[in-house]
Amino acid sequence: MIRAGVVGATGYAGAELCRLLSGHPQAELAAVSSVSFEGQALSDVYPAYRGVCDMVCGTQDEVVERSDVVFAALPHGLSQELAADCYAKGKVFIDLGADFRLENEGDYRQWYGGTFLHPDLHALAVYALPELFREQIRGKKIIANPGCYTTAVPLALAPALKNGLILKEGMIADCKSGVTGAGRKPSQNTHYPELNEGMSAYKVACHRHTPEMEQSLSHVAGAPVTLTFVPHLLPVNRGILATCYARLTPGVTMEQIEKAYHDAYDSEYFVRLLPKGKEADIKNVRCSNFCDISLHVDSRTGTFIAISAIDNMVKGAAGQAIQNMNLAFEIEETAGLKALPPAF
Amino acid sequence: MIRAGVVGATGYAGAELCRLLSGHPQAELAAVSSVSFEGQALSDVYPAYRGVCDMVCGTQDEVVERSDVVFAALPHGLSQELAADCYAKGKVFIDLGADFRLENEGDYRQWYGGTFLHPDLHALAVYALPELFREQIRGKKIIANPGCYTTAVPLALAPALKNGLILKEGMIADCKSGVTGAGRKPSQNTHYPELNEGMSAYKVACHRHTPEMEQSLSHVAGAPVTLTFVPHLLPVNRGILATCYARLTPGVTMEQIEKAYHDAYDSEYFVRLLPKGKEADIKNVRCSNFCDISLHVDSRTGTFIAISAIDNMVKGAAGQAIQNMNLAFEIEETAGLKALPPAF
Amino acid sequence: MIRAGVVGATGYAGAELCRLLSGHPQAELAAVSSVSFEGQALSDVYPAYRGVCDMVCGTQDEVVERSDVVFAALPHGLSQELAADCYAKGKVFIDLGADFRLENEGDYRQWYGGTFLHPDLHALAVYALPELFREQIRGKKIIANPGCYTTAVPLALAPALKNGLILKEGMIADCKSGVTGAGRKPSQNTHYPELNEGMSAYKVACHRHTPEMEQSLSHVAGAPVTLTFVPHLLPVNRGILATCYARLTPGVTMEQIEKAYHDAYDSEYFVRLLPKGKEADIKNVRCSNFCDISLHVDSRTGTFIAISAIDNMVKGAAGQAIQNMNLAFEIEETAGLKALPPAF
Amino acid sequence: MIRAGVVGATGYAGAELCRLLSGHPQAELAAVSSVSFEGQALSDVYPAYRGVCDMVCGTQDEVVERSDVVFAALPHGLSQELAADCYAKGKVFIDLGADFRLENEGDYRQWYGGTFLHPDLHALAVYALPELFREQIRGKKIIANPGCYTTAVPLALAPALKNGLILKEGMIADCKSGVTGAGRKPSQNTHYPELNEGMSAYKVACHRHTPEMEQSLSHVAGAPVTLTFVPHLLPVNRGILATCYARLTPGVTMEQIEKAYHDAYDSEYFVRLLPKGKEADIKNVRCSNFCDISLHVDSRTGTFIAISAIDNMVKGAAGQAIQNMNLAFEIEETAGLKALPPAF
Repeated sequence: MIRAGVVGATGYAGAELCRLLSGHPQAELAAVSSVSFEGQALSDVYPAYRGVCDMVCGTQDEVVERSDVVFAALPHGLSQELAADCYAKGKVFIDLGADFRLENEGDYRQWYGGTFLHPDLHALAVYALPELFREQIRGKKIIANPGCYTTAVPLALAPALKNGLILKEGMIADCKSGVTGAGRKPSQNTHYPELNEGMSAYKVACHRHTPEMEQSLSHVAGAPVTLTFVPHLLPVNRGILATCYARLTPGVTMEQIEKAYHDAYDSEYFVRLLPKGKEADIKNVRCSNFCDISLHVDSRTGTFIAISAIDNMVKGAAGQAIQNMNLAFEIEETAGLKALPPAF
Repeated sequence: MIRAGVVGATGYAGAELCRLLSGHPQAELAAVSSVSFEGQALSDVYPAYRGVCDMVCGTQDEVVERSDVVFAALPHGLSQELAADCYAKGKVFIDLGADFRLENEGDYRQWYGGTFLHPDLHALAVYALPELFREQIRGKKIIANPGCYTTAVPLALAPALKNGLILKEGMIADCKSGVTGAGRKPSQNTHYPELNEGMSAYKVACHRHTPEMEQSLSHVAGAPVTLTFVPHLLPVNRGILATCYARLTPGVTMEQIEKAYHDAYDSEYFVRLLPKGKEADIKNVRCSNFCDISLHVDSRTGTFIAISAIDNMVKGAAGQAIQNMNLAFEIEETAGLKALPPAF
Repeated sequence: MIRAGVVGATGYAGAELCRLLSGHPQAELAAVSSVSFEGQALSDVYPAYRGVCDMVCGTQDEVVERSDVVFAALPHGLSQELAADCYAKGKVFIDLGADFRLENEGDYRQWYGGTFLHPDLHALAVYALPELFREQIRGKKIIANPGCYTTAVPLALAPALKNGLILKEGMIADCKSGVTGAGRKPSQNTHYPELNEGMSAYKVACHRHTPEMEQSLSHVAGAPVTLTFVPHLLPVNRGILATCYARLTPGVTMEQIEKAYHDAYDSEYFVRLLPKGKEADIKNVRCSNFCDISLHVDSRTGTFIAISAIDNMVKGAAGQAIQNMNLAFEIEETAGLKALPPAF
Repeated sequence: MIRAGVVGATGYAGAELCRLLSGHPQAELAAVSSVSFEGQALSDVYPAYRGVCDMVCGTQDEVVERSDVVFAALPHGLSQELAADCYAKGKVFIDLGADFRLENEGDYRQWYGGTFLHPDLHALAVYALPELFREQIRGKKIIANPGCYTTAVPLALAPALKNGLILKEGMIADCKSGVTGAGRKPSQNTHYPELNEGMSAYKVACHRHTPEMEQSLSHVAGAPVTLTFVPHLLPVNRGILATCYARLTPGVTMEQIEKAYHDAYDSEYFVRLLPKGKEADIKNVRCSNFCDISLHVDSRTGTFIAISAIDNMVKGAAGQAIQNMNLAFEIEETAGLKALPPAF
């Protein structure tokens, strides 16, 4: 069994990691830590886990010591030293935060206000969106797990972009996120009576996930691309719906588009291309690692529309992290991630 | 008192008309009709109205006879004969359906599958979005009340388009609607357990409101324009959030945009331009006739983003219909529409 | 116009008072105060109010000075000095908090941990649940406005209890409350993702509203009664549903029960007795001052079941406070409170 | 592998059976049937299942033929012939409907309007609430799976009743159910806009689950008992919260109560007794077979309050049916039912 540890286990992504690891056939939850809840059982923080996952939160050091792989679910800026420690001790390090996601330190400084403390570690790190960059992940020790929007949007646009079926300019991602994306800490805008029956955009065209998406899409396109990104907060718990718009390359047909997506994704267990006439729905991927994608063309205006749906906590965080662990340890990529999403 | 009648009073738009009319200082609910609930009290269908609005549903003919103004909240295709009858009897006719919205019969045939039964009546009808076409509404007898999306999107884009601040090509409206927009009749996709915690697009780039929006925007632009329109269904009761994207005309500044919108809307009671840094939220307009609009620029990509929020049942249906009645009868335009939206 | 001031205007009850007062035909919002938001406009805190209710929050002293009636929506313990100040200055004081609700200082000490600072003021105060104690309210200057549960439960049980149709022992109130009852301050249990799709009881048999309900019911019964009270938190914004159980006095019939309730409530504008076969629903009273009541008998077990539904923020707080203001100023009791609840 | 078939697979309980069976280590989904969707894939009806559970719906006969155990999720009245067929062919038959739950044909006739077609089969059937009647289930061929309310309420009250700690008279179950309990078929009261933000009771003191609960409680008590049962419909998808009230036997202490419950449930995997000061919440059992129970005493009134929470679709239907299959086939009782409930 792979001994897996979770640093920051009482945040939402950390708790979801514990849930998924508790059902993993080849890994076991070896240790958890939490600064806020040190000494308390995970099931005191999340009573849903009572009787099944009652492990007591220890320190970060204890997690490193007891684990073969360390998952870090920490606020940005706190992962770099931990990565160094894990690397020195030969542990696999999987970061659910943003510290290792951006290749360019300038981007990191601009969008997050931090610096690369160990440039050598950044050089060793891999940006791990398996469906796009799988071959670079195998055997890696420092793994940057993508964020939620930054999983949903590139998966929706990549095959069209890679095959030149859409223009590189003018892509737009109108995204809608469930509230768990805002984390466990209460705030005014996630207070039940204020969010319920509401819906609005936030951080319009200035969300930190923008450069990360552009980085992935630029790799796919083989040239720098920009993207307009507008996130919205939905009154539901889980899910990202990404409605992505791009201008069709003149002359491109729906058949060409469908072929490109089938070529890219038919062998991908976690990507489900929907049949014509269906629309991706966050409902259908809840609690699962699936990414559902539906494809649409507005021939009146020459616009391509790809809609993807993921569970922000699973394919957008903890599930993808486990998928990456599976890749890093070269076991079955889907291990521990095959539970069916509930239908309702 | 203006005697107001509602045909189709037990549908959602009809019921909302009754609610608003019951508080109107210069109009009174004179008669209501319903095919499905003839002979039953409105408060049997909507127990919320018990004791205040217990009027019994009669026939369409009774409504016409007892009313100075007839509101029709009917499925498309059923309003044309009623309009002719009202016109012949000198009643003001306000249609909440689509029969008189499209100026071009070809568009109507293409998108709705119907024909213009009385072309002369269509020539007399006015498309009544007051903030854009007010002067044409005064004194009219046949009034086509806009739909919900077709109110939210043109209001968001008109000032920029009219002043040449955005390009006519490539406009996109990513809209999110509350469930009441789907009407009172139960269906699988509005069954509580299937919509709750879900979110998806529907009728992607093929919704019937598309030509109506293009018609309004073309009038504003002074030239034909097309639009990519993608509606989504939200798990909330009321509201349309329209996130509208357009390419900025090169060189245009945020200051120019703000000036155009303030010029257009500062004297409009029902349009609230939000201060910089705020985003329009459907929460803040519920049960009211307000349209909140926030303006954003993505200078990295040269994209203009205007976000509007309305209550689909009020500014998007019944409230705007009463606003139009007020205009037609030349009373205070805001009469009966000043109730504050609840804060939670 | 009655000049009405609100102390604590940015809490939920205070904000609801401002909403209702803004539509009152014989009162006007004269001043508002807030410790947390002094100097800010009410519409900065509640953007729904923008353009209609932009009054800036001042100090408590300013409110007293500018008002004929002062509404206090404060945490318990803070109203007594304010009441004294208002009384000295000849203002009517209406307290939405608990300081003046309990007649017995021992009860107040036991359940709230406070003392009566001005016993003479307590002697002048009236507990103002109009449908039960109307005659004692007229002309009073210090008015204790009941809480939400303490409005719903006594209204449901009073006619049966008063007429000896149920036993005084063994009454149970199983109540379900919307989240606004927990106030505006975010907390873990009202954080959207943790409450959504959840439902549980809280403060089981130890909620502070217990002695207040027992006080009202004891007055009605003419003898001391106790009550088992279990509140639950519902994932909805507004509403109290009180399912009240009592043992039928042997031999009592449904007809006797119905007669007692009709005698008590047929002349009450705000109480709506539902016809046989209907159940009270919080949905139908939202944003209104109505209290819907349905009556049921389990003849198999000899149990009487009365179910009442109110909007906790209106009949359970701000609306009833305005009803009491109307009584105190001897104007139409329903003034400003006649808006129809939305049907959806 | 046990070959498991599901008759009525496209209803909610049937679909949940398929979800749970797809993850069962010792059983496999062998065949499914549906009258409404014959010839269609399960994943066409429930797109969440796409790619994982695409089995096509066949006929009831095909299910019987291909299965070792047949689960029936049918409207009441339709299971009796199917049971006879299965019994004749040596299959285990597990009925999620009501046909075999009531021991007394008079009760069945009174509450369901049907008759016992095969009294001999009823004599062979067992009422299968494992935590109360486990020993009678092992090796049985015809298994009546309890309903949702009828699982939650007896589990909450049984230990107190069995040990004489509460009186047999005057028990009350105030229950709150998620909407999936109303089934997949759309109706007006489960139409999203009409249920959302609403809450009411239904079938007050006349719900069909009443005699089933009384039957179980009478067995536990060793004497006939009656119960007042009031169900409510909650705007959430899953869950039953049962708040149960009973009169304490004079002199009984909380310690005695706690001991009785610990004795009864400490060895039960699926029952979680909560620590003092916590309240059972439907949130914490979603998608799991757990039943959480919290115990409370109102010493002021001599009332015992037990609150239980289950997922109506799992412990209240499909999960318990699989638990019973495990018992019938004498494999590990928890097999296939150990997935952790999601924390949010």
